[in-house]
Amino acid sequence: MERQQVSEKDRYQFQHEGAVELLVFNFLLILTILTIWLFKNHRFRFLHETGGAMVYGLIMGLILRYATAPTDIESGTVYHCGKLAFSPSTLLINITDQVYEYEYKREINQHNISPHQGNAILEKMTFDPEIFFNVLLPPIIFHAGYSLKKRHFFQNLGSILTYAFLGTAISCIVIGLIIYGFVKAMVYAGQLKSGDFHFTDCLFFGSLISATDPVTVLAIFHELHVDPDLYTLLFGESVLNDAVAIVLTYSISMYSPKENPNAFDAAAFFQSVGNFLGIFASSFAMGSAYAVVTALLTKFTKLCEFPMLETGLFFLLSWSAFLSAEAASLTGIVAVLFCGVTQAHYTYNNLSSDSKMRTKQLFEFMNFLAENVIFCYMGLALFTFQNHIFNALFILGAFLAIFVARACNIYPLSFLLNLGRKQKIPWNFQHMMMFSGLRGAIAFALAIRDTESQPKQMMFTTTLLLVFFTVWVFGGGTTPMLTWLQIRVGVDLDENLKEEPSSLQANNLDHSICKGESSGMFYSWYKWPHRYLKPILTHSGPPLTTTLPEWCGPISRLLTSPQAYGEQLKEDDVECIVNQDELAMNYQEQATSPSSTPARLGLDKKASPQTPNKENIYEGDLGLGGYELKLEQTLGQSQLN
Amino acid sequence: MERQQVSEKDRYQFQHEGAVELLVFNFLLILTILTIWLFKNHRFRFLHETGGAMVYGLIMGLILRYATAPTDIESGTVYHCGKLAFSPSTLLINITDQVYEYEYKREINQHNISPHQGNAILEKMTFDPEIFFNVLLPPIIFHAGYSLKKRHFFQNLGSILTYAFLGTAISCIVIGLIIYGFVKAMVYAGQLKSGDFHFTDCLFFGSLISATDPVTVLAIFHELHVDPDLYTLLFGESVLNDAVAIVLTYSISMYSPKENPNAFDAAAFFQSVGNFLGIFASSFAMGSAYAVVTALLTKFTKLCEFPMLETGLFFLLSWSAFLSAEAASLTGIVAVLFCGVTQAHYTYNNLSSDSKMRTKQLFEFMNFLAENVIFCYMGLALFTFQNHIFNALFILGAFLAIFVARACNIYPLSFLLNLGRKQKIPWNFQHMMMFSGLRGAIAFALAIRDTESQPKQMMFTTTLLLVFFTVWVFGGGTTPMLTWLQIRVGVDLDENLKEEPSSLQANNLDHSICKGESSGMFYSWYKWPHRYLKPILTHSGPPLTTTLPEWCGPISRLLTSPQAYGEQLKEDDVECIVNQDELAMNYQEQATSPSSTPARLGLDKKASPQTPNKENIYEGDLGLGGYELKLEQTLGQSQLN
Repeated sequence: MERQQVSEKDRYQFQHEGAVELLVFNFLLILTILTIWLFKNHRFRFLHETGGAMVYGLIMGLILRYATAPTDIESGTVYHCGKLAFSPSTLLINITDQVYEYEYKREINQHNISPHQGNAILEKMTFDPEIFFNVLLPPIIFHAGYSLKKRHFFQNLGSILTYAFLGTAISCIVIGLIIYGFVKAMVYAGQLKSGDFHFTDCLFFGSLISATDPVTVLAIFHELHVDPDLYTLLFGESVLNDAVAIVLTYSISMYSPKENPNAFDAAAFFQSVGNFLGIFASSFAMGSAYAVVTALLTKFTKLCEFPMLETGLFFLLSWSAFLSAEAASLTGIVAVLFCGVTQAHYTYNNLSSDSKMRTKQLFEFMNFLAENVIFCYMGLALFTFQNHIFNALFILGAFLAIFVARACNIYPLSFLLNLGRKQKIPWNFQHMMMFSGLRGAIAFALAIRDTESQPKQMMFTTTLLLVFFTVWVFGGGTTPMLTWLQIRVGVDLDENLKEEPSSLQANNLDHSICKGESSGMFYSWYKWPHRYLKPILTHSGPPLTTTLPEWCGPISRLLTSPQAYGEQLKEDDVECIVNQDELAMNYQEQATSPSSTPARLGLDKKASPQTPNKENIYEGDLGLGGYELKLEQTLGQSQLN
Repeated sequence: MERQQVSEKDRYQFQHEGAVELLVFNFLLILTILTIWLFKNHRFRFLHETGGAMVYGLIMGLILRYATAPTDIESGTVYHCGKLAFSPSTLLINITDQVYEYEYKREINQHNISPHQGNAILEKMTFDPEIFFNVLLPPIIFHAGYSLKKRHFFQNLGSILTYAFLGTAISCIVIGLIIYGFVKAMVYAGQLKSGDFHFTDCLFFGSLISATDPVTVLAIFHELHVDPDLYTLLFGESVLNDAVAIVLTYSISMYSPKENPNAFDAAAFFQSVGNFLGIFASSFAMGSAYAVVTALLTKFTKLCEFPMLETGLFFLLSWSAFLSAEAASLTGIVAVLFCGVTQAHYTYNNLSSDSKMRTKQLFEFMNFLAENVIFCYMGLALFTFQNHIFNALFILGAFLAIFVARACNIYPLSFLLNLGRKQKIPWNFQHMMMFSGLRGAIAFALAIRDTESQPKQMMFTTTLLLVFFTVWVFGGGTTPMLTWLQIRVGVDLDENLKEEPSSLQANNLDHSICKGESSGMFYSWYKWPHRYLKPILTHSGPPLTTTLPEWCGPISRLLTSPQAYGEQLKEDDVECIVNQDELAMNYQEQATSPSSTPARLGLDKKASPQTPNKENIYEGDLGLGGYELKLEQTLGQSQLN
């Protein structure tokens, strides 16, 4: 009977903690939501929701740190294993001969048997990186991909890729070098044992801190309808450079020179580069593969009659893309990002209108929750994480490094790009991009993933401070900065209301344009997926029987859906037609959600003046889901911010 | 460098497992969804989705059990703590002097330092009850409450409460007694040490296995549009008796007689009864409290402009109701159930139409996922859970017990109820209820929550088998049983299509009825919340200035929303008015989701013939959200099944 009694007690205890932990986050989120609403009402833009979430997290962290009672882990009750009839929630193992309970902990900290000691609730509060990577990040990244503004994205593809790949590499190396200098200084100042902090560690820090996350900035851009090109440049860069930074972090942590780590080992270096390319490529492939599977499933099963099943399938397959990439030791973030892009591009067109809305709302909601949980958690971590190492010199170095690195990234690259671009990137855009180098979820997640060694703990602490500073200071300063740099901000909504109805005609215009425009590098690049992938994966596009060679007739007949045959003669117009459907959908949605109207109109406005012929093709082939989604996202955002 | 290398390896390993674990469930769910779709297409009703989920779970469990490689836990690598620079995922502690690695495990099993040993992936697969209770169950129960068919529910309230409270108590005691007999037999047969399995343990099993979960049955009822009264009786009973069973299980496990456990201790017994009532009442209170808070927040903050914030708030507060109940050692299930009912009744009316749809779809989706995860997991658990104890005698006893107990529950109570009911419960209904005594998620969750001692492990194994049997056999047999018992099944949809337009007039009819009917016990009972709660919590209802006494004028003016004043003169019509809005909403929704039409029409049809005057009042005050939601849920279900 005692047994049962004890286990009961134990059970309540543990259940209690589990609930409390979640409850804390719920309350933080509720507070955040109410604050957001308050800010909305008062058009208050200097603190973004994520900033607010962090503030609440900080406060809660303080409370938890200094107001919670120590549990029996600290009171150090000793059970005799023989008598132990229930399973204790925590084990403190004395692997030395010391008998001081405090000593136990020291020992254990050194041996890293358990990363966090002390107050059980604090321990609970610092949940493991696994949750971050497998549960919280995927929805955010997927949503980014799913709602990518494809038209402008593919127009600026070159620049975005340059910033993302070259830029991140530059920033990683620059930060690495500067930090290495400061590390040397720290060793000189005796704050650090020599050989404790290798150059690879510096590069590791450089790569993880290179992941920019201008969520705050972009939110404000959304609200103010800032120039879409600037928006796309920033958005594309930040989304892709997250992926790059993550892969880079892995490859660097895999970098293992044979002899002493400080020496430069060419073989190992090129191996790392190989790792990088290999991981990135295969993650990309895996992500797209899952999207293709989803597209085929939604095309050939008539799931449209059961929107929930459709949504469920869509959700699960997209998540699986992430998980199987992780399981294969690739980077899920990259996989899920490109999975999202492909889903938006092909699968989206196969979904029933109900599922279209459901998926969008679902991911919008998950993105919102996950984002705020992460930022709350960052606030919490400052006080609940128990192995912080604050080193003034290192922190100073890091702050200096990220600014220098950002400068070395943006300005030279913009200069080079402007040599090639017809439509130059003006100075005020460059300054804005320089200013928008916020650090956020990804950097934090990468830092918390490994906090075993002392250098790693130092990095984690510093990363946390960098996130706080950038989100609060830069995030808050966005609006003034926009005015100061005189960047073109949103347009009058009323005059759009008049223009709105004309956009369908505008589309028939596109239509003819589509026919007209049929040259240019982009076009040929876009032609292939339009001719083969689109008809295979969706119900639209030219029938394969016309595009594929004779000998593969049966397959093409099998894969082409009856709907497609109707379009035999007007291959290139398809996008315009679908495009009209999309627009039709928008109108319908406008009816349901009034708050969307301004955002959308604002967009249409901005879109119309600068849509050269080329764009309409991406509009057609690459922009469909995206275009529609962009609007949806805008309305989502405009409701948030 | 080695350090980093090792931690890298270790990190990948652990991340790998985390991802794989989730991936397995994703694949199972994807398979389930595709199967459901297949069954839908072929109108195949003998295996319900949950049954299918279990089958896939079983298969996957087999594969995991016999195809996964043992990890270094089994290979028993020994690290010297001094050299241990990274944190191992598992610790095997040798607390004896035996040195056989196998012996370690035996020892550890006996000392219960870790419940599951061996294959690390299996270990991962058996995730802890915490997740069940804090993450998977809440959405299911909340959805049940949120989509409760209030009109019929409150009409049959008396019977439902009788079945739920009295019935569960009876079933618990009967099962307890029968099992106790079998335990004695086992002791006699030498399969069990005497004093190892107390009478309290038998009652514990009795209570946990008394939680019926006819999800399969109800799903089929939905699809076939079975008599709504039978539906409501079963639904109400199963939902409430889950709550009762859970509280009962707690109070029994708290039951601690001073001296030997077999003796009956009056004091302890009444203490348990006290516990039961206390926990149930306070959980109820907490759940409703949260709903009231939500209602007030959504009423006084103009969140309607930001549907996502509104949805977020709604979601988080409802979940918090569950969590804070758990944190306060009450039962979250009860809390979240009544939270759901209250939310549907008051908050729902304050939500923007967009949020109304979002919340419904969100909870529908979560319910769908959670349910299938649980059933998949049950399938998995049969092979992945490592401490099964199959005892033929005990299992036989359990099977016998649940049938006898169900009979002792349904037939006598129905007889007693029929003495009081105007509208009798016919024999075929009673047989159907008898037949619908399926066991499911709750029983499983209660059983897995405590698998430390040998008896508890035996209970867990048996519960698992009972769930399999009842879900497959009874779940599969529902349709034939309905025909055999000649229970009135759905009506021709075409003739409804003609009738449909008239339902608005039908409503104006209600309207006049509402005016006419103003007597009867139910009415007075319903009058109070309508006069005071409704105007306080929503924008509708008679203004408080008219209902509250003079002296609390200021408060009433503060609480009454301007909209309400318009309704000064027609207190009792409010529900009818709102009701029309609701119906209007249905039409609008019909447009969006075609598949909903049949289910809804089927319902309207069945509703119309048997709506005595009294009902329209519940329709008005208690049925609104429910009515609307019921339809929504029906369409949800009809898409599933």
